[in-house]
Amino acid sequence: MIKKVLIANRGEIAVRIIRACREMGIETVAVYSTADKEALHTQLADEAICIGEAPSNQSYLCMDKIISATIVSGADAIHPGFGFLSENAKFAKLCEECSIIFIGPKSKVIEKLGNKQEARKTMMAANVPVIPGTKEAVYDAQEGKKLAKEIGYPVIIKAALGGGGKGMREAHTPEEFVQSFNTAQTEAKNAFGDPTMYIEHFVQNPRHIEFQILADNYGNVIHLGERDCSIQRNHQKMVEESPSIALDEDLRQKMGEAAVRAAEASGYENAGTIEFLLEKNGNFYFMEMNTRIQVEHPVTEWVTGIDLIKEQIKIASGNKLSYTQDDIKLTGHAIECRINAENPRKGFAPSPGTITDMYLPGGKGIRIDAAIYSGYTIPPYYDSMVAKLIVWAKNRKEAIHKMRSALGEVIIEGIETNVDYQYEILNNEDFQAGNIDIEFIEKHKGEILCD
Amino acid sequence: MIKKVLIANRGEIAVRIIRACREMGIETVAVYSTADKEALHTQLADEAICIGEAPSNQSYLCMDKIISATIVSGADAIHPGFGFLSENAKFAKLCEECSIIFIGPKSKVIEKLGNKQEARKTMMAANVPVIPGTKEAVYDAQEGKKLAKEIGYPVIIKAALGGGGKGMREAHTPEEFVQSFNTAQTEAKNAFGDPTMYIEHFVQNPRHIEFQILADNYGNVIHLGERDCSIQRNHQKMVEESPSIALDEDLRQKMGEAAVRAAEASGYENAGTIEFLLEKNGNFYFMEMNTRIQVEHPVTEWVTGIDLIKEQIKIASGNKLSYTQDDIKLTGHAIECRINAENPRKGFAPSPGTITDMYLPGGKGIRIDAAIYSGYTIPPYYDSMVAKLIVWAKNRKEAIHKMRSALGEVIIEGIETNVDYQYEILNNEDFQAGNIDIEFIEKHKGEILCD
Repeated sequence: MIKKVLIANRGEIAVRIIRACREMGIETVAVYSTADKEALHTQLADEAICIGEAPSNQSYLCMDKIISATIVSGADAIHPGFGFLSENAKFAKLCEECSIIFIGPKSKVIEKLGNKQEARKTMMAANVPVIPGTKEAVYDAQEGKKLAKEIGYPVIIKAALGGGGKGMREAHTPEEFVQSFNTAQTEAKNAFGDPTMYIEHFVQNPRHIEFQILADNYGNVIHLGERDCSIQRNHQKMVEESPSIALDEDLRQKMGEAAVRAAEASGYENAGTIEFLLEKNGNFYFMEMNTRIQVEHPVTEWVTGIDLIKEQIKIASGNKLSYTQDDIKLTGHAIECRINAENPRKGFAPSPGTITDMYLPGGKGIRIDAAIYSGYTIPPYYDSMVAKLIVWAKNRKEAIHKMRSALGEVIIEGIETNVDYQYEILNNEDFQAGNIDIEFIEKHKGEILCD
Repeated sequence: MIKKVLIANRGEIAVRIIRACREMGIETVAVYSTADKEALHTQLADEAICIGEAPSNQSYLCMDKIISATIVSGADAIHPGFGFLSENAKFAKLCEECSIIFIGPKSKVIEKLGNKQEARKTMMAANVPVIPGTKEAVYDAQEGKKLAKEIGYPVIIKAALGGGGKGMREAHTPEEFVQSFNTAQTEAKNAFGDPTMYIEHFVQNPRHIEFQILADNYGNVIHLGERDCSIQRNHQKMVEESPSIALDEDLRQKMGEAAVRAAEASGYENAGTIEFLLEKNGNFYFMEMNTRIQVEHPVTEWVTGIDLIKEQIKIASGNKLSYTQDDIKLTGHAIECRINAENPRKGFAPSPGTITDMYLPGGKGIRIDAAIYSGYTIPPYYDSMVAKLIVWAKNRKEAIHKMRSALGEVIIEGIETNVDYQYEILNNEDFQAGNIDIEFIEKHKGEILCD
């Protein structure tokens, strides 16, 4: 078993990992930037090593410094958390070369899954549904129209070099295809000087449904059910829940099996997440695989009872999975709200600063994973997420009531937060009815915190 | 359904009840003494009514003031919490007479179970084991010796008017009986001027095992498994857990059935607890029935998933139980440590005062039911318990590790607490091995916080 873990991260996930290690009797080493001298993870770990200044490219992203700290402290493993170096194949490889256990999959697997085209091919070979689209570039509208028919309407026409919505048009019928194609291509030529186009099936108002998987080093792979992370603002998840009310047992099994195939096909080891888009008609498509622990892992932990960080460490230590798929039961309903230091009334501008007073709720079915404390100064250099509020109840309705009640109790003074914004989401009738998709925030703009 | 609840209590249990009501969409009314103006329950409730000064007999124990506050606020129910008026049959009766729903059993049932002799008779009639003992007074040693043989050795000989250990002797064999009896009786005569003696079976080093029951108003009674509350200091529980490692499935079923019979035989309604003493040989004896919610209810909530306060409110609203005995499964292991404002190094003297700084842990499997916040001044008039730390894990070993880790994180400055003392209990080898009984604290005196 791993004896000493260096946590190559900061914030609540570093605290989360330190706690898991402590409970397992594993020593912990924190690394911190000079800006994080007073951070909770720096204070909670058994040892803490300063690795440079903010911003992150001076410290948390410096592979050499982190490897040095690991060697100096005598840690035998690194937990990368999420963000920073967690999905960096080069860093994982460096660990392998230095005989340091990287708590995550092998570097080759990270590399393969990090390459979108590579990942797509792997999934297709494993019979995991991907969004239908052209395999080769398209230059001609009429040729495109034929391909669009094969792919299935609606389609989205995308410039190969596109970005920010430019050179991108939807076509919902064959009638409008040619004009859409030509408009998009003209835009592409003007914006990027390149007429190369691709056509993909346009997934309309999908939900973001992801499956948590666990894979040991002996070929055993299980999934731990899904998370519905459809509530996003600018592709940033805000509210996550498990299970999803959009899935019945049949669909859960079907998607879960696809997730397990995805992991198996990529030779995956450790904890990972397969992200899907789910259409209203029940069709689902592979988006990407995240080769790390996710921010939203607590909702899965609560409905399954399984500690994912501990499982990660056990797997990395060479243990076999102690669960089979049949052992996994989803009980009750869990919801997570991310608490960000940001100002929803000013375009969600980050709001770092000193927390002058703080009160966080407690009680039955309340979990708080936080990196903050009263008197703590949130530095301006990092992600604005400073805490997560997770609730569990017998069913979704009760969980929503619990979350509203808990959000209502939160007091964080001295900075701005999104707590009231989250409250309004939870209070929204469509949210409560489960009428959610990835356009939810966009659709309800003006209703939520419109004053 | 009940629409508005007045909480006739203070501290963490008042906060607990307010949260449950809020989640159920029920309005809440707090009552508070002038000393509790800044208390958390006063601040969290929808309304708060001052009912007088400290100490409690000027406020929290004043039935007329509480009834008035209920009527004035338009609340249709009173939740009494624990302590104060919660087991006061007269108060329950007053509520009945005023057509206020008392969230608990009928006043007659409280009265019957509050009378030890009455309760003992009810239990014997229901075939619930009670501690064997003489039914009539004994005056003669030889007569006593005959009865002791029937009762079963070891026995304890007690003066009818005894107290504080006076006029009380153990006898472990028939050989020592006569001398013990005579010594006890002489002591009794000298101390109380009365030679009336009783003989009871002496339960040696028992565990305190209690069963949570739920009973609706339609005759449905279930039990929610046991709590092991053997860790006590001066009959005050300190650490509670569920399940107890002293019970196998057979014994759990046997004791659980006895608990259900106890509730049925007394015409019990709402949540209640049957306390047993459990001997090493598996014999168990009814001690008493608590006709209210208990401090340690969260450990049961966590292993069963059931919210006991919400169940109390639903039952009091006239709902039928939505669970049968077969629905109840104990999953994992939960432990609760009571956090008291007291100084273990000064004979556990209460330590009221202002909390100048506070940090409480969070994360997976951590629940905190607290009445405190940073800057709060704990008044000197009330019970010293200010918070409860509850953990859940897959099994007892992991739960102990989690509790140790969590206790290690707690920071409460400005007052003294028993947090370090609790840590040492959790760290004790006998505790970890499950070698516990109600003498645990006494046995380990000097080892725990001996410096």
